[in-house]
Formats: sequence, structure tokens, C-alpha cells
Amino acid sequence: MMFFEGSEKKVEAVMQPGQPSLRSLGRPFWAQLVAKANAEILSSVHNEACDAYLLSESSLFVWEDRFLMLTCGTTTLVHAVTEFLKHFSEDKLAMLTYQRKNEYQAQLQKSSFSDDLASLAPHLKGKAWRLGHLDGHHNYLFHLDRPYQPQADDATGELLMYHITGADAEYLRSEGQTLAGIQQRMGWSQLLPQFQFDEFLFQPFGYSMNGICGDRYVTMHITPQEDSSYVSFESNLEAEALIPVLNHLLRVLKPQSYDLISFNLPCPLAHAEGVQLIDHAEQTLDIGYRMAFQHFLLPNTQVRSADPL
Amino acid sequence: MMFFEGSEKKVEAVMQPGQPSLRSLGRPFWAQLVAKANAEILSSVHNEACDAYLLSESSLFVWEDRFLMLTCGTTTLVHAVTEFLKHFSEDKLAMLTYQRKNEYQAQLQKSSFSDDLASLAPHLKGKAWRLGHLDGHHNYLFHLDRPYQPQADDATGELLMYHITGADAEYLRSEGQTLAGIQQRMGWSQLLPQFQFDEFLFQPFGYSMNGICGDRYVTMHITPQEDSSYVSFESNLEAEALIPVLNHLLRVLKPQSYDLISFNLPCPLAHAEGVQLIDHAEQTLDIGYRMAFQHFLLPNTQVRSADPL
Repeated sequence: MMFFEGSEKKVEAVMQPGQPSLRSLGRPFWAQLVAKANAEILSSVHNEACDAYLLSESSLFVWEDRFLMLTCGTTTLVHAVTEFLKHFSEDKLAMLTYQRKNEYQAQLQKSSFSDDLASLAPHLKGKAWRLGHLDGHHNYLFHLDRPYQPQADDATGELLMYHITGADAEYLRSEGQTLAGIQQRMGWSQLLPQFQFDEFLFQPFGYSMNGICGDRYVTMHITPQEDSSYVSFESNLEAEALIPVLNHLLRVLKPQSYDLISFNLPCPLAHAEGVQLIDHAEQTLDIGYRMAFQHFLLPNTQVRSADPL
Repeated sequence: MMFFEGSEKKVEAVMQPGQPSLRSLGRPFWAQLVAKANAEILSSVHNEACDAYLLSESSLFVWEDRFLMLTCGTTTLVHAVTEFLKHFSEDKLAMLTYQRKNEYQAQLQKSSFSDDLASLAPHLKGKAWRLGHLDGHHNYLFHLDRPYQPQADDATGELLMYHITGADAEYLRSEGQTLAGIQQRMGWSQLLPQFQFDEFLFQPFGYSMNGICGDRYVTMHITPQEDSSYVSFESNLEAEALIPVLNHLLRVLKPQSYDLISFNLPCPLAHAEGVQLIDHAEQTLDIGYRMAFQHFLLPNTQVRSADPL
């Protein structure tokens, strides 16, 4: 059985004023950082505000004063973070968060969140949290313990979708799918008409996308395998632009279970009939963000067979 | 934070007719087997049909022609199984099942279910299944691939309870709790008046119990820690005796999430208001058992804070 766990890990860092532009560090610097996470740069797009690198099932966005790297699978993102901290120590940072979702094949990961905290501890003084019950979906966050005031429009939404169903999910699992076919189903040109996209279609299936427009980004990673399907979408779009995108993805992909994680973003979605909120945790962080975690689920009303191993 | 995961693993084996009595192997044989799983015998009770050993957060029941061993925490039950198979090879067995629940700290376990299958493969030809979604609660089962016909009264029910709440849960977490206090709350003398019990109270808390009556057994293990509370109860009682016990435990312990796993046992329970069945898988096994897995959950309607790590 083909198995790929979309076990996302994410780092976001903002530099202190007066630091050199992170973009000026150039692609070789970032390629070397990405390599520390066991990933590689596949392609990139650039605009006046941002360099967006599409990695192997992962993404990296670099702005003048901040960067965001998001990796999946058994990547070792924490090694990229500690490498970055060799060049820019804690006192150069205004803000840093390191985030990890729950994993269901934790034994296949090269480290646990707790191990990652131990790797970060010599470099950064921080606080760590878990949002959501340990035996259900949950999300871990570590942040640098330093007061920070995000800008008014600094908000993030992350939608993690499991068990996608329906005709479009079947299309994503099918051979012969095309980028045009995926784009059309996801509605990028209608929903995000101003965005510049960078996409990659894996063989036999799997899709990664970065999109940028000014200092706004979207990123999506699809691992459609029937037994372990997982799609993540994340963006710093303002709520009025983001919510229609998230609602469209829920309508198209029909996930039977999904997590909505947000930072400073009220994000009321249009849930399908029968979908229930089964866990909800919120935390005001000392770094100026209100983090929310919600796990939604469509109860499985049919008796299923066992999965043969 | 004190953390103990009740990551249960279970083996049950039935011998071919004509094999020597397993009880006649004596306590040293079983003590050595238990040691292979990194557990130890704390105490025991015996009746005309069964020897019941209470282990460190684990249990072992030995009948003339079958045995059942159930271990928790980071025990290595599969090593006890392979040790047993050195003495009694596949052709001496009429039936063998090896079962493991999902783990939420899989990286702390010494092996995964997949690793365990690899350990068993040289000794046994079998089939393996997962009941329940990978990203939710689920249960793994391996069984010897040999036709078997269980007796008409051979049925098992397992109730795995998470996030116990209410006054009785608080009692189980409190200092100064007593065996008499637990017995009274669990209602053993009313519900199982004919049973002979063997119990152990851990410090500062935690409770293990075996009970036997003829060839029937009950076993319960409580790890009440607030952040990761978990209680398991299992028995081969017939449905009309078992269901009142399970309903009483649900009423007393008020778990917010629980799994009911059964073999050849229709087991309709009295669920509290608001409790939902969120996943349900059933499988007819070639060894004569119908296995059912149901995950029940009381959706968390209040916004909780994050858990600090």
C-alpha cells in the first residue's frame, strides 16, 4: 500500500528592524536551508514582495523581513530552523513560531514535537502549546517568548482536510489527471484571479501549489491516496477573500474530517449538512496572535469493512 | 507532566486438542513469558478453570487450552508471543489473535504494529486488519490464517474509555483513594457478585483489576491522569451480564470518547445524551469471529484553552 503522511511542520520567522533583507540572501542560501530539512527546490515564482519556492511536497516563502517554510512527509524542518539560527541568532528575531500537526504514524517521523523542542531549546527561549485532545486531531505550537505586535492585516488560516470524497476527489486519485483539470476544479482563476501560480503534479498523483499576489500567499498540497487522503491549504489572505476559497474547497473535496487552524482570523465557514465541530481550543499567545483550532467531522453513518494490511 | 499511555496490546491463543494443559506449565513458565514483555507478575487468583495473573498495568489469564495476555504502556507483548511460539509452534495452535489499539505517542513505543507483524511473520502465517480510520481511533488485529470455529458462548467485549469526567473520575485522580472506594464506585459486588477479584492500587493513582468466575473473566485498567485519562475494561461475559457492567461504567466514568470493540457480541449500550457514533467498522474474520469497532464521542461544545507543554 502506498502511504504518504502529510505530516505538516511549519516555521515562520520575522526579523527585527534593521536586519538585511532575507530575499537578498539569494537562492543558494535558501536551497541549503531547504536541504537541511531533506527537501529540495522544484521551482519558484517571484513578485515585488515575495520569493515563493515550491519544494518536494513543501513550500518556502521569503519576504524582505520574514520567511515561512512548510514541509510534509518525514522532512526534518527543525534542522532547517537550527541552521537558520546559526546565521541569525535569537536577538535578530522579532518573532518565530514552529508548528506541527498531529501525526498518525509518529514512529515513521525522524523526531517528535518534543524532540524538536529539545533541538530548539539551546537557541531560543520559548513557550509551547498543544491545541486539541491528544487522542484526537491536534496541533502543536512553539513560539519565541518575546512580546510582538503583529500588523493589523497579519492573519493566517490553515485548512487540513482528511478523507476527501466525491467525483473531484476521484479525479485527484485518477491517472491522466492534468494541471488544467485540477486548476479548473479548484477554481483558482475565479477565486484568486490576481494570483501568480507555481504548480507541480507528482506521479502517479499528488499536487503542490504556491500562489502569490503582492505580499499575500496561498499554498496547497494534495496527497489523494484513498486510504490516507490529505489536503492542506494555507494562506495569509484577509478573511473576506479567504473564506470563499475555503468554502469552495470544502464543497469540491468533501472531506469527512478537517481541522481549521487560524491566527487572528475569525473564519466562519459553510459546513456541509451533518458536519459537527468535535473539538475546539483557542489560546491568546503572548506574541499578539489569537490561535484557534477546530476539528470538524462528518460522523461515519455507514458500517465500513476493515482495511486489510 | 506525568504521562502514561494505556497503549494496549493483546494476544489470545487457543491450543489444538491433545496439547498439554497450559495451566500445568506453572507460574515460572508464565513469569518468564511476562518478563519478555517487560512486565512482571504482581499477584494472582485461581479457580477451577483459570489462573489470573495481575501484572504491572497488564493482565494474563491462563485456561487449560487457551491464554490471554493484555499489556499496556511501552511493554513489548510481541516478544512474549514469539517466546511462546518457541515452545508451541504454529501447528500446535488452533487459533491466535494479536491486537493493538491506536497509539497517540507512537514514537514512545518500542515497536509499531507493522514491526510486530514482521516479528510474527517467521512463525505464523496470518492476516492483518485495521478497523477504524487511520487519523482517528482505530484497532489493529492479526490472526492466524487457519479455519477455526469458536464455541457458541465464546464472545469478547472491550470498552476503551478516554477523558473520564465527573466526580468519580475526580475521585480516581485524588490522593487518598482506596480500593474499597473504587470497588464501591465501580459496583463490582452488585454487578459481578459471583466473581473473585484481584486488584492493585498504584501510587499516586492508577488501578488494575482482574476478576474470574468459572471460565469467565473481567479485567480493568485505569490511568486517570487528567490530561490523558484512559480506562479499559474487557470481558468474555455473555451479553446479558456484560451490557449492564459496561453501561454502569459509562454512567460512572462519563468518558468523552470511547471505543467499543467486540467479537461475536451484539453489544447495544445506553449512551449518554449527545454521544455520537463517529466511526464504525465490522469485519467477518476467517477464524469464526465477527469483529466490530465503534468509536463514540461526545462533541466538545465548549471552547477549551490550549494545553501548555
